[in-house]
Amino acid sequence: MLYFSSDYLEGCHPAILDKLQETNLDQTPGYGHDVWCDLARERIREAVGKPNAAVHFLTGGTQANFAVIRSVLRSCEAVIAAQSGHIVDHEAGAVEACGHKVLTLPAECGKISAEQIAALVEKYRSDDAADFAVQPGMVYISHPTEWGTLYTRNELQAIHAVCCSFGIPLFIDGARLGYGLAAEGTDVTLKDIADCADVFYIGGTKVGALFGEAVVITNPGIMKNFFTTMKQSGAVLAKGRLLGIQFAVLFENDRYMEAGRHAIRLASRLRDALAEKGYEFYMPPESNQLFLKLTNDQFRRLKASVVFSFIDRLSDDEVVIRLVTGWATTPENVERLISIL
Amino acid sequence: MLYFSSDYLEGCHPAILDKLQETNLDQTPGYGHDVWCDLARERIREAVGKPNAAVHFLTGGTQANFAVIRSVLRSCEAVIAAQSGHIVDHEAGAVEACGHKVLTLPAECGKISAEQIAALVEKYRSDDAADFAVQPGMVYISHPTEWGTLYTRNELQAIHAVCCSFGIPLFIDGARLGYGLAAEGTDVTLKDIADCADVFYIGGTKVGALFGEAVVITNPGIMKNFFTTMKQSGAVLAKGRLLGIQFAVLFENDRYMEAGRHAIRLASRLRDALAEKGYEFYMPPESNQLFLKLTNDQFRRLKASVVFSFIDRLSDDEVVIRLVTGWATTPENVERLISIL
Amino acid sequence: MLYFSSDYLEGCHPAILDKLQETNLDQTPGYGHDVWCDLARERIREAVGKPNAAVHFLTGGTQANFAVIRSVLRSCEAVIAAQSGHIVDHEAGAVEACGHKVLTLPAECGKISAEQIAALVEKYRSDDAADFAVQPGMVYISHPTEWGTLYTRNELQAIHAVCCSFGIPLFIDGARLGYGLAAEGTDVTLKDIADCADVFYIGGTKVGALFGEAVVITNPGIMKNFFTTMKQSGAVLAKGRLLGIQFAVLFENDRYMEAGRHAIRLASRLRDALAEKGYEFYMPPESNQLFLKLTNDQFRRLKASVVFSFIDRLSDDEVVIRLVTGWATTPENVERLISIL
Amino acid sequence: MLYFSSDYLEGCHPAILDKLQETNLDQTPGYGHDVWCDLARERIREAVGKPNAAVHFLTGGTQANFAVIRSVLRSCEAVIAAQSGHIVDHEAGAVEACGHKVLTLPAECGKISAEQIAALVEKYRSDDAADFAVQPGMVYISHPTEWGTLYTRNELQAIHAVCCSFGIPLFIDGARLGYGLAAEGTDVTLKDIADCADVFYIGGTKVGALFGEAVVITNPGIMKNFFTTMKQSGAVLAKGRLLGIQFAVLFENDRYMEAGRHAIRLASRLRDALAEKGYEFYMPPESNQLFLKLTNDQFRRLKASVVFSFIDRLSDDEVVIRLVTGWATTPENVERLISIL
Repeated sequence: MLYFSSDYLEGCHPAILDKLQETNLDQTPGYGHDVWCDLARERIREAVGKPNAAVHFLTGGTQANFAVIRSVLRSCEAVIAAQSGHIVDHEAGAVEACGHKVLTLPAECGKISAEQIAALVEKYRSDDAADFAVQPGMVYISHPTEWGTLYTRNELQAIHAVCCSFGIPLFIDGARLGYGLAAEGTDVTLKDIADCADVFYIGGTKVGALFGEAVVITNPGIMKNFFTTMKQSGAVLAKGRLLGIQFAVLFENDRYMEAGRHAIRLASRLRDALAEKGYEFYMPPESNQLFLKLTNDQFRRLKASVVFSFIDRLSDDEVVIRLVTGWATTPENVERLISIL
Repeated sequence: MLYFSSDYLEGCHPAILDKLQETNLDQTPGYGHDVWCDLARERIREAVGKPNAAVHFLTGGTQANFAVIRSVLRSCEAVIAAQSGHIVDHEAGAVEACGHKVLTLPAECGKISAEQIAALVEKYRSDDAADFAVQPGMVYISHPTEWGTLYTRNELQAIHAVCCSFGIPLFIDGARLGYGLAAEGTDVTLKDIADCADVFYIGGTKVGALFGEAVVITNPGIMKNFFTTMKQSGAVLAKGRLLGIQFAVLFENDRYMEAGRHAIRLASRLRDALAEKGYEFYMPPESNQLFLKLTNDQFRRLKASVVFSFIDRLSDDEVVIRLVTGWATTPENVERLISIL
Repeated sequence: MLYFSSDYLEGCHPAILDKLQETNLDQTPGYGHDVWCDLARERIREAVGKPNAAVHFLTGGTQANFAVIRSVLRSCEAVIAAQSGHIVDHEAGAVEACGHKVLTLPAECGKISAEQIAALVEKYRSDDAADFAVQPGMVYISHPTEWGTLYTRNELQAIHAVCCSFGIPLFIDGARLGYGLAAEGTDVTLKDIADCADVFYIGGTKVGALFGEAVVITNPGIMKNFFTTMKQSGAVLAKGRLLGIQFAVLFENDRYMEAGRHAIRLASRLRDALAEKGYEFYMPPESNQLFLKLTNDQFRRLKASVVFSFIDRLSDDEVVIRLVTGWATTPENVERLISIL
Repeated sequence: MLYFSSDYLEGCHPAILDKLQETNLDQTPGYGHDVWCDLARERIREAVGKPNAAVHFLTGGTQANFAVIRSVLRSCEAVIAAQSGHIVDHEAGAVEACGHKVLTLPAECGKISAEQIAALVEKYRSDDAADFAVQPGMVYISHPTEWGTLYTRNELQAIHAVCCSFGIPLFIDGARLGYGLAAEGTDVTLKDIADCADVFYIGGTKVGALFGEAVVITNPGIMKNFFTTMKQSGAVLAKGRLLGIQFAVLFENDRYMEAGRHAIRLASRLRDALAEKGYEFYMPPESNQLFLKLTNDQFRRLKASVVFSFIDRLSDDEVVIRLVTGWATTPENVERLISIL
């Protein structure tokens, strides 16, 4: 079988495992107070262009999402997200379990706009609503989105501006950030992300690490005592150095970006082959996730030799599936897949 | 410097890293649905003597504690714990953040008794209290306790019996279980733990793993949809196999128990040397954590060459500190420490 | 000005105030343990035809909604509701503040169907979703709905049946139940409500009481320790007899039903006059709330002499407003309103 | 039987019921936006000497407590309270249900001191604790306390000063404030309360109202969107005027203070008689609650003709009980009670 179901099928970048071996019996203090975490923080601050940013390491995306959100929001505040946002329907109600509602906006190809956000905030802040409805307290977007699509720099700046005008922080979920930054034709850089977001995270789990997300806070005033909130959220790793080592290695020698570029090169090869063979994309193929429409026949045929994600059934004879490349996908497997398509 | 501050200073048992290397580019499904998790579950079920137990893998203790507790409790129920219990004052209010109060009992050397539990439940269930106070919904104990002490089999069975009589589940936090089971003179086996607890976990983070706790549910009726609650708690690792591999390796060839025995041998050597040199123990030295009283002079002198945990100041000239051995502590370092004492 | 903006503009049925005067200096135990609460419970059990139902008195609807919901649901469970349901966007996130997500269904005229519920539960229980999404744990409907519409007995029975088949309790919000039961053409009786719902409440605040909702639990097994959960929710009135007196008076001499019939008679008179004058209803006018479309001109004209609820703007020249009759509306005011329309 | 078990046995001050009768069919907007609430707010602002204070009306104490606390605290913050504080063990875990831990201090006669608070905050803010323990975010005290005792002005000012020095708001629960202010020998005025507290409430339920607490916020910056949080907490009464009328009446013609003085006069008479007859007080009898030690014989004898509160059993032959006078207690009943003692 060929596996194209996700970008977290394999372990991690070999350089990480080597470093784990090399340092295995070193003794370090726990909870992120070690030299590796310090080094990783330094490299990340440098890469994002924010020398004063706070950087924290967590083990996974759901954890990072709810820890950040509960740290920012007050008791009757809610987070705004796209209906397709990961926090809406894929994290088992983690945000609500922290006491906060998710206010959803219909998304176009996974993206929401500054205008939509402004209209929603105005509606909830109006006299009629403010007494009886939750108050928008932050905005959550994913880049790339859950549909693999990308915001443009203009779009991000517009969202940033509207958030500023309402005094509402912007949180960018970068679980697949490396693939977004390496995408063909994107004009968004890591520094743009850091300039637009009050808090965001750089995903490691899906981009070359064994696990781990680096939360970068560029506006620390909004998240008092975040480390304590992490602890409360079960999001502090005892052997914090495991996260420090991973991000220190990924942010050395351009490894993180190269992991992204590798997956994008293969995704582009696959995208072109699919287009050539007449497959129809359900979403614009902008990063390492490709969403295709298949007939039932195509679906059955592909399923016989390829593992992929089933997304939705559109009609009696039409389904949507997802093919994903990652930092560890091999060109050989992509060619094999193309030959089957 | 000599490090005796904790049992999570180093990485992991070399056999784990070897297996991570060996399998690094294997492709597996995520979230615990892989062959390694299956193998680890099988070995754990065998080791605990419960062929039908549910076994789940989480990354850390705080996470395991609150995920289990929120899964068991209803809206107005509370968990009973020793005042010194880890969930009381070392997890940043994680249990309360899930909406549940922790009802504390004064602990003797970190332990609570069946009698104390019975009295507390009866008090809270009495007519006067039941309408206005939370209702005890489960009991939490640690084995070994936070003070390194151990329950006897009789004590555990008595607590189990009282819990049964009130229809309240017993949850055993085994963050250091390996050290407890390997302790000199204990009559408690892993199967006893599994017989007495409705749910417990086998700590990996402090006993040879990079990270990870194996939650074993012997009474699954009390924890409906626990996996979904794990997801809600940010406690599902995308690359679940990392946990599967670690526990599969630790529960092969007696490695988990041997890691415990190693630390206990060194702790016993240290304990005997301390006693001989006239140091006073603040708590009975029953497992791998030794709590000593030091004068200010002793404290200053030791601090110059040893890293340990400061616990409390008892008086103007008396402090309590903790020395810990672990699976990776070397006999050489123990001898060096003894020579300094 | 004429007030038709809601059914809670006035105080209460005069018989209630008389009884409060009469009993004012009586001394009774608090928290619902008094003779008046006992009497009210007895009358309500009789009226709903459930001699073994548990009956509790709370002061308001939001409180009743979240106390019931948190009492029924486990940690990763959610409540299903119509998108227009009161708990969705009119209670400031009270359900989410208890840790639970509200899963919304698109509503037709405020109503959801057994088929929609079944499809949603099946989707969330499917293998793909169950691990990563909240699990439906109960169904919430309002009768009458927030749009003043009514379920038929068949519709309620179908919803009840589908809930039973999935083992999910049905909760009926009866904030305006009196008006629903008294509506023209309805085939739903109070006993039908009690037969179909596992828990429901009989609204007093909007139907003749100063304040108060009577929660009736016909399936007590689903709500362990509900009184304690009420206390936790700030929903236990110290002078519980105030609620007992109100419901005892309302459920004596058919007063509750007569309050409903009075409002319905006036709503019907108003509905007929509106229809005759060519106004268009935005929702079928089935109980005491009438939703009309107005042009901007009509809106401005009406606003000059009538207080009503603005609901929504449909287009540049079209708005929706709500006119409401209640137990205290006078026929004279209805005639005055008609003369203005 | 003679009833001395609490100060909420009767209905309300007759002037309130008269006003409810008089205004019963008036039509007013809901949710506190009516002329009565405005009038009550004005009278309370005048009485407390804070023309800019925000004043909100809630129906009960538990509700007021948790709504205020959840509005002030951030995700990992806790509230400091006396071990005997009402929020600790008499409100069914309502604070924890909002996600916040209560950090308790041992109380002397129900009171905590500025020094205790300072020591606790310093301990939790220390480097060792701050990462792993909740952070103190506010202080809760009751005046009078749950044991009927009173802070002096100096004590309140010292607590206020220490709270200011740590940047932590002070919340005073005034469920029985009227009795505290009217107590013999107290030097604390309503204006002192308002000067020392960032937020406090004036209890109506126990001091002459049918129900209701007036939350006064002197430092509104700490409680963003409090009304929305009230709604989320089920603490907004639809017919808000019921609360407005009650507080407007109580704060007219000195009625609130006179209700307090009446109860205190009778409590003093009772206290003197008890002392004369040789009864021993368990707590200093400083306001309207008298805590006595009784032998088993005395207890049985009294129970035959008087309803009081059993508090605790001290030994085989000694119990603690509570006798309470209130705004509606009659001098005749006090004399009857004395004759029985």
